[in-house]
Amino acid sequence: MNAEIIAVGSELLTPLRLDTNSLYLTRKLGERGIEVVRKSVVGDDHERLTAEIRRAREAVEVVVLSGGLGPTLDDLTRDAAAAALGCELEFHDSIAAGIAERFRRFNRKPAEVNKRQAYVLAGAEILENPRGTAPGQWFEDENGILILLPGPPRELKPLFEASCLPRFDRRESPFRYFTHSMRVAGIGESDVDQRIGPIYSAERRVATTILSAPGDIQIHLRARARTAAEARVIAESLGTKIQDELGRAVYTLADEPLEAVVAGLLREKGLKLAAAESCTGGLLAGKITAVPGSSEFFAGSLVSYSEQAKIDWLGVDAAILEAHGAVSEPAAAAMAQAARGCAAQALGSPAIGIATTGIAGPAGATEENPVGTVYFGIADDNGVVVKRRQLGAGRDRVRALAVQTGLDLIRRRVLGLPVSA
Amino acid sequence: MNAEIIAVGSELLTPLRLDTNSLYLTRKLGERGIEVVRKSVVGDDHERLTAEIRRAREAVEVVVLSGGLGPTLDDLTRDAAAAALGCELEFHDSIAAGIAERFRRFNRKPAEVNKRQAYVLAGAEILENPRGTAPGQWFEDENGILILLPGPPRELKPLFEASCLPRFDRRESPFRYFTHSMRVAGIGESDVDQRIGPIYSAERRVATTILSAPGDIQIHLRARARTAAEARVIAESLGTKIQDELGRAVYTLADEPLEAVVAGLLREKGLKLAAAESCTGGLLAGKITAVPGSSEFFAGSLVSYSEQAKIDWLGVDAAILEAHGAVSEPAAAAMAQAARGCAAQALGSPAIGIATTGIAGPAGATEENPVGTVYFGIADDNGVVVKRRQLGAGRDRVRALAVQTGLDLIRRRVLGLPVSA
Repeated sequence: MNAEIIAVGSELLTPLRLDTNSLYLTRKLGERGIEVVRKSVVGDDHERLTAEIRRAREAVEVVVLSGGLGPTLDDLTRDAAAAALGCELEFHDSIAAGIAERFRRFNRKPAEVNKRQAYVLAGAEILENPRGTAPGQWFEDENGILILLPGPPRELKPLFEASCLPRFDRRESPFRYFTHSMRVAGIGESDVDQRIGPIYSAERRVATTILSAPGDIQIHLRARARTAAEARVIAESLGTKIQDELGRAVYTLADEPLEAVVAGLLREKGLKLAAAESCTGGLLAGKITAVPGSSEFFAGSLVSYSEQAKIDWLGVDAAILEAHGAVSEPAAAAMAQAARGCAAQALGSPAIGIATTGIAGPAGATEENPVGTVYFGIADDNGVVVKRRQLGAGRDRVRALAVQTGLDLIRRRVLGLPVSA
Repeated sequence: MNAEIIAVGSELLTPLRLDTNSLYLTRKLGERGIEVVRKSVVGDDHERLTAEIRRAREAVEVVVLSGGLGPTLDDLTRDAAAAALGCELEFHDSIAAGIAERFRRFNRKPAEVNKRQAYVLAGAEILENPRGTAPGQWFEDENGILILLPGPPRELKPLFEASCLPRFDRRESPFRYFTHSMRVAGIGESDVDQRIGPIYSAERRVATTILSAPGDIQIHLRARARTAAEARVIAESLGTKIQDELGRAVYTLADEPLEAVVAGLLREKGLKLAAAESCTGGLLAGKITAVPGSSEFFAGSLVSYSEQAKIDWLGVDAAILEAHGAVSEPAAAAMAQAARGCAAQALGSPAIGIATTGIAGPAGATEENPVGTVYFGIADDNGVVVKRRQLGAGRDRVRALAVQTGLDLIRRRVLGLPVSA
C-alpha cells in the first residue's frame, strides 16, 4: 500500500515551524510495508484542504491527516474531510460528554466551541485520544483509508500506536517486515558508510538507512519477507555482519541513546561517576542527568569554566596550568582525578572521573591547539588516561561531539575496551 | 503573490530527514510579501513530480522546486519540469564547460552523467551556483514563475540570495513589508496570547505569528504598506502597544536568545556569575557557555546532583538538608550564596550566584513538592532571594523550563526588576 501524509495548519507554513509528526508516521507505516510517497503541508483554508484530500485519495490508498481537529473556527480538518468525501458530519453525544468530563477534571467548563470536536464523519470509527479532547477518526471505503489525527505529537503518537497500528496489523498483506537497529559511537558517518556500504548493498531484501547526529550514528535495517520470522532472520543476519565489521563501536541494539547505555553499565557495575567539565560547559552532565534516577550513580559535575575555578574547585595545581595551560594533557588528567575523588567522596567507591578541556571556538585557538582540539581525561581505580581529539569546527558542533566522545570513553573504560575506536 | 514550495528527493520521505530549505524560502519570500500557501515533498518519481508541478502551477503564481538537480538518473527535476511545462531541454555548452572547469580545480574528471546538469528549460534563465555543479533555473511565462534550485542548503541559500531575491525585488509590487520581532520570558504562551490577542487582532495591516518553546516566546509582526517606511511605522507602533502590555517580560527586540541577553547585561555591568545546579543538571551552564567568550564572566557551575555533593562542594550545611530536604527554600538560598562566593573567588566581585533545586520527575515527588516544583535561589551583594515555581510535568520539559526561568531571574535581578513576571 502507498500513503500520503497531509499536515494541516497555517503555523506550519511559517518560517518557524516544521511538521515533525510525518517522520514518526513514515517510520511506523514503513514498518508495516506502507510506503509514504508524498507529504504536504496545507494551511487553515477550507477550499485548499478539501482539494488536497480529494487529490490524495485519488493518488494513494492511505491518506493520513494530522492537525486541525481543535475546537476553534480555524480547525477545518473535519469539515474539509466531509466535503472531500461528500459525506455528513454526525454529532456524538458520547464524545461531547467525554470532553465535558475532561474539563471537569481540570476544574474548568467546556466552551460552546468545544462541541465542534464531537462531530465525526458519517461511517468513521472514533479513535480515542487519552491525552486530549479531539478524538481521531478512521474512515474506510472502496477508495481507501482516511485517518484524522490530532496535531500535538504527545497526543498523536499514543493514539496512532493504540488505535491505528492494530487496525493495519489486522489487514491482509503478502509481506511481513522486521526492522533491526543499532547505534554507533566513536566513528564518523563517512567511515561507517565506507566500511559497511559493501555489506548492506549486497543484501537486496533489506532497506538500509543511516542517520547521523554529531557523535551518534543510527543504522536501521528493514527486511521484507513472506513471514515475520523470515524477515527477522534476514535483518538480524545482516546486522551480525555489520557488527562484525564495526566491532564494539556498536554500543546498542536497542533504540536508546548513549547516555542510557552508560547509565546502565554504571548501575550494573556499581560504579559512581563525577565530571569535571570545561569546554562542554555542563552539557555532559546535562546528558547524564537526562536519564531518570541518575542521582543514584552520578555525584555531579564541576563545570570549571574559568581557570581559577579549576584551581579552587578541583584543586588542580596552579603550576600545571601555568606550565601547560588549561587545554593540555596534564590539566585533563588532574581534572579527571579530581572528579574521581569527588565522586568517591560523595557516593563512595569504586568511582570514575571524566574530564573535558578544549577549544570550542571561535576564539581561544593556538598553533598547538586549533579550534576543535579537546582533551578527555578518564580516571578510575586503575589510574588515569588522557585522549586528545580533533573534533572539527563550529562551537555547537564541537561541544556536542565532545559530549558524545566523553560518554563513549566512559563506556569503553567501564567495559575494559581500548579507549580509541 | 502566492507560492508553493516542492522539495524533491526520496530521502526526504524517509523517517530520518526533513526538508528544512522551505523554512528559509518561506522567510525570504514572506519578507517580499509572497505568501507560501502549500509545501510538499515528492520522491524521485517522474510521473508524480510532473503531476505535482503541473498542479502547483495552476494553483499559485510562484512555484519553487528544491533538489533533484544532481547528475544521476535519480535526479529528475529538470525532466519533470520540462514535461510539466511542455517545453524542451536545451544543452548549454557554457554550463558543461563550467562543470569541467570545476572538476579540474579539484583534480578530478567529470563523468559522462555530469552532462545531464548542462540541460536547461527552453526559455529559462540560468542562475549561477558558485558552490556546486548544478545551476539553478528561472522560468517565467504568463502562468507564473517556476524556479529550480539545488537541494543542499549551502548551495541553495547563496544562490537564492544572489539570483532570485534581486529578480523579485525588480518586479512591480504595490506593497512593501517590514517585520518587527520581540522575545518574551517568564509568561506562558496562553497568557501571552490572552493579553495581546485583542491588541494584535485589532491591527489588520499586520500578520502576527507567535512561536513558543519552553520558557521562550517569539512574537513576529509583519506589516504591509505602500512604502517600506510606512510598513515599519505600522509594525513598530503595534510592537509598542504589545510591549506596553507585556512590560519587561519582553527581553529583547533583536533576534537573540535569552542567554545572549543575560551575557550582554553581565558584561555591561561588570558582574561575574556562577551557578549551583541540581535539577537542571548542567543545562543552565550549558546555555550560558553557548555564548562565545562566556569565560570572561562565567566562573562555572557546581552541578551537585547528589546530596553529599551539595555538602562537599557547596558547603551547604548538612543540618539544612536534614531539616528541610534538598528541594527547599533554605537549600536553594544556601546553594545560591555558595555559588556567589565561588564566582567572587574565581573571577572577583561584584558577583551573582544562581541556584536550581527541584523535582524533574518522574520519581522523587512528595506531597509538598510534586513533580515540576523547582526552587530558584539568586544571591548578589544585596542578599539572597528564593522563588518557588511549578513548572508542570515531563522531565525534559521541566528541565528546559527551569533553565529559562533561571536565566530570566538573573536578567531581572541585574536590571533591578521584581523577580516575578
